[in-house]
Amino acid sequence: MQCDPIGTVSTPFETTSDAPSQGFHDDAEGVVRVDEAYAAGLSGFDAESVVVVWWADRADRSVLTLDRDPSRGVFTSRSPARPNPVCLTECRVVAVDVDARTMTVRGVDMADGSPVIDLKASLEDRRD
Amino acid sequence: MQCDPIGTVSTPFETTSDAPSQGFHDDAEGVVRVDEAYAAGLSGFDAESVVVVWWADRADRSVLTLDRDPSRGVFTSRSPARPNPVCLTECRVVAVDVDARTMTVRGVDMADGSPVIDLKASLEDRRD
Repeated sequence: MQCDPIGTVSTPFETTSDAPSQGFHDDAEGVVRVDEAYAAGLSGFDAESVVVVWWADRADRSVLTLDRDPSRGVFTSRSPARPNPVCLTECRVVAVDVDARTMTVRGVDMADGSPVIDLKASLEDRRD
Repeated sequence: MQCDPIGTVSTPFETTSDAPSQGFHDDAEGVVRVDEAYAAGLSGFDAESVVVVWWADRADRSVLTLDRDPSRGVFTSRSPARPNPVCLTECRVVAVDVDARTMTVRGVDMADGSPVIDLKASLEDRRD
């Protein structure tokens, strides 16, 4: 199954190791830039929070158990190292600029430049 | 970016249209069956809830705005119809059988037989 990036995210972190574990404990700001082909998907975005679905393109996909505790499988964790490095970060929405195709968010934990594969309004804001 | 299924999920719903919108309003039960190659990823799973990350393989990936309201882009919604049909359903964990490679869950909203690409312990249970 082929995932196509819909954009990328700029963050202050060079690697995921530099980033806080689960960004929303932190206030780091990032900017999601949506590619032109997907710009219409941002229209009317008015939720206060968003799930940024991103691809940890530098993660080791061969990992099945946790280094620090091999009795635990990767599905018990949120580590980016997993068979499909699809990561979820719930962020607060600071600003959306549909014309510029950007969404500024707080609470990022991605490595700078990570591909974004989806944005989803948080369930608290939208259930449809 | 290539996503490989780690398993599939059995549910009572033939299509996503038959399923409740955001399954956790409902009590429908399903079973995630993890492929043998990824079985170790389930080890030690003891969280009470799980985010099932699945692929809506019958979704229309060309959709960018909502049929019912074209002023809203798909990123404002949770609809499976979106450029990358990666869907997130938070479910309650009923039982995990590591030997049988199954996780029985409640609150499903996937079409029966949908590919599963990841399982993540819920943030409420695990933050690492």
